[in-house]
Amino acid sequence: MTRYRLRIEYDGRDFVGWQRQDNGPSIQAALEEAVRRFCGETVTVHGAGRTDAGVHALGQVAHFDLTQEVTPDRLCAALNHYLKPAPVAVLAAAVAEPDFHARFSATQRAYLYRIVNRRAPLALDRGRAWFVPAPLDAAAMDQAAQALVGRHDFTSFRSSECQAKSALKTLDAFQVVRRGDEIRLTVRALSFLHHQVRAMAGSLKLVGTGKWRPAMLEQALAARERGAAGPTAPAAGLYFLEVRY
Amino acid sequence: MTRYRLRIEYDGRDFVGWQRQDNGPSIQAALEEAVRRFCGETVTVHGAGRTDAGVHALGQVAHFDLTQEVTPDRLCAALNHYLKPAPVAVLAAAVAEPDFHARFSATQRAYLYRIVNRRAPLALDRGRAWFVPAPLDAAAMDQAAQALVGRHDFTSFRSSECQAKSALKTLDAFQVVRRGDEIRLTVRALSFLHHQVRAMAGSLKLVGTGKWRPAMLEQALAARERGAAGPTAPAAGLYFLEVRY
Repeated sequence: MTRYRLRIEYDGRDFVGWQRQDNGPSIQAALEEAVRRFCGETVTVHGAGRTDAGVHALGQVAHFDLTQEVTPDRLCAALNHYLKPAPVAVLAAAVAEPDFHARFSATQRAYLYRIVNRRAPLALDRGRAWFVPAPLDAAAMDQAAQALVGRHDFTSFRSSECQAKSALKTLDAFQVVRRGDEIRLTVRALSFLHHQVRAMAGSLKLVGTGKWRPAMLEQALAARERGAAGPTAPAAGLYFLEVRY
Repeated sequence: MTRYRLRIEYDGRDFVGWQRQDNGPSIQAALEEAVRRFCGETVTVHGAGRTDAGVHALGQVAHFDLTQEVTPDRLCAALNHYLKPAPVAVLAAAVAEPDFHARFSATQRAYLYRIVNRRAPLALDRGRAWFVPAPLDAAAMDQAAQALVGRHDFTSFRSSECQAKSALKTLDAFQVVRRGDEIRLTVRALSFLHHQVRAMAGSLKLVGTGKWRPAMLEQALAARERGAAGPTAPAAGLYFLEVRY
């Protein structure tokens, strides 16, 4: 057996999410089917993170095992060939150590959340960003976000469907920057709760519009109650950015 | 009569082009219909440039006249409302001088051409950029492009369907820069021939791969023959960037 590691980009709009499901196409199933068509082997492709329906990836990482050995270049080209026309691209392939695990070996995951902050609705970025017409103060959002960095109980920012045993997570970094009409949130942690990034983005939007004072984000965190934080921001703005090992 | 000026963004994929045509939806018709639904007036919307099918805009400019007076803010919001669900957004509206003409008053138009230069096919940028897997030398492309700046006969870079009387055009600037996997061509001129930017992009790609020495672009220009230049690059990579008046 040889273990292969992939770096993957996808447009999440056409998918029910990363994970194989009965109710529609998933990125995982698209990759497994591409492997099967390439070499006839039935594999399980393990991803570093299970992105939801509509969530995109710029640098998802995955691994799987093949009985046969192929060069990474050939594997990459073949998978991209058999993935067509799905909006999934294998950016890089490599032979991995036998004990490498895309999910369990990860030491840090990074997500990007894109907000387009202007009065006009989205034309080119539709489905790729969250459209927020009310003026946002990115500096205030960045300042408030720092209260979330570190080890905390993130109960206030987890979906009711979250299956994690503990809500304790450690955010390594949270950055909010404006670039013209766009506000970019970048957040790094070993792992996240279900909907955590989107719940944090939804709450930071309230800080950005001035509806919340920055200190209210800290209060929402301390409340350990989902209702204390803001609404969950749309999937369209979320990108799985990269994984560190 | 009051003349209004608009700045417009659109995703060109769903359209037969800017101009009203019998064979499918156009951006011009979408705007005219939005005006009609808003205030009942039948107008002609004049654009600064007639983009082709599949070509996008970040800053198209247009004008039209209304018998009634509306505030620019209300006009902008109303048009965006009635444009839904078309991927067309009015970024800004303003009252214009009575002699302002989006097309004839323009003093410079700028186009952006986006190439994604990597081995993996496009997932997130599909329909939004030209995918070129062969490595491109952006510095060589930029150097070669300078030979096109200035006043020249661009017969080698015009479509056979181009209806302009003269092929003499003056390029004000041509810049080719790499940003990671992306190569961005920005070109500025008072006006362009049909398919000129795409024909120049297609030829610069040949310089980028090394198939053409940079001097060959100058030779192609001097030949004044469409066959002497490279193929027309795809519409998907082209963006109407901005207009100066």
